[in-house]
Amino acid sequence: MLSLFHVPLSPFCRKVRLTLAEKRLEVKLIEERYWEAGTDFLRRNPAGKVPILRYDGRMLAESQAICEFLDDVHPEPSLMPNDPAGRYEVRRLCAWFDDTFHTEVTANLLYERVNKKLMGRGYPDSQKIKTGSTRIKYHLDYMSWLLEHRRWLAGNAMTLADFAAAAHLSCLDYINDVDWERAPLVKDWYATIKSRPAFRPLLADQVPGMPPPRRYADLDF
Amino acid sequence: MLSLFHVPLSPFCRKVRLTLAEKRLEVKLIEERYWEAGTDFLRRNPAGKVPILRYDGRMLAESQAICEFLDDVHPEPSLMPNDPAGRYEVRRLCAWFDDTFHTEVTANLLYERVNKKLMGRGYPDSQKIKTGSTRIKYHLDYMSWLLEHRRWLAGNAMTLADFAAAAHLSCLDYINDVDWERAPLVKDWYATIKSRPAFRPLLADQVPGMPPPRRYADLDF
Repeated sequence: MLSLFHVPLSPFCRKVRLTLAEKRLEVKLIEERYWEAGTDFLRRNPAGKVPILRYDGRMLAESQAICEFLDDVHPEPSLMPNDPAGRYEVRRLCAWFDDTFHTEVTANLLYERVNKKLMGRGYPDSQKIKTGSTRIKYHLDYMSWLLEHRRWLAGNAMTLADFAAAAHLSCLDYINDVDWERAPLVKDWYATIKSRPAFRPLLADQVPGMPPPRRYADLDF
Repeated sequence: MLSLFHVPLSPFCRKVRLTLAEKRLEVKLIEERYWEAGTDFLRRNPAGKVPILRYDGRMLAESQAICEFLDDVHPEPSLMPNDPAGRYEVRRLCAWFDDTFHTEVTANLLYERVNKKLMGRGYPDSQKIKTGSTRIKYHLDYMSWLLEHRRWLAGNAMTLADFAAAAHLSCLDYINDVDWERAPLVKDWYATIKSRPAFRPLLADQVPGMPPPRRYADLDF
């Protein structure tokens, strides 16, 4: 059986969890407080990061490389298009969410509100919260623009790009930082993803001392 | 003909340039001072970043997505292995260099010494220079460890992972920040990559007011 070393509110771990679940791969989840990483964890993973997937005895790191590997080895249902231009667009958007969105939004909101508290590193920086709250609006607008032209973010089929985006947004929704009313098309898209069986375990996540808002797990939010 | 909007000392642009050259795709290079980005550039590229590749009239962004697209559409010579585990390892290492190495080394050394000056944003932060100078040692050691076990970084054939790594190291070599004597295996590997025809244009790069050390372009350094 596969094992995933993860933390519940990590968008990178969630992207891998969604991919595993969509492909009906059973996985044992092992929560890893990587910031307190002991020597055992660092031996498994010198980069000191999560997610780490144990697969056939090998330790796999880097969420995008892991997800593309899973899609390569377990091609059904596929999360990558068949044509090079389609694959390009998926990879561009994964990088967009995991790099640009991550830096501008996730790091400013989620890491300030949640990770700092969990790691005992003080209080949220109000300037960063403000920056994140402003930037998420532009990102919701950009996603709306994409969804005006396409059924899913990268085209007319669901792909890894949707999971990358949903992984970030679901973490931010857990802390009530997504203004769904601003972007009805994004809300509809998220409702569709949220209702997939693959999403259910994410909706059951609980961070001690930080309960999510009621609508977080509500499919009709 | 293809056009690449780039800056000479950007590891992400260099990775794309190496990929284009290895596949013998002719490209017109257009230097883009993205930090002074005018509306024309921002219209082409809302993310405000380089590299941007104009390919068949489309504007492509995100260096890893671009390189994998080029490898998909122009598969000879291939820069990705044929097997899923091989592709995983290439993607893991590209992420390693473009994310971890970039944050720990490139941002601390190259961006402090070069980008700040070009952008008129003051003097290098000596603490960051110190951090970068320490971290690069661990990375050279890690590369040496890989090269003890493999002919190239990701296996026994040259791949995109070698170009990602060489792109970062070549920028750092331009500012004389690589202690090649520390890592003879890495030096041999770099000498082999450096002698490829694809590498020649990079060795001719000149940043006004910042000449490289003589050995930068020297194949026998």
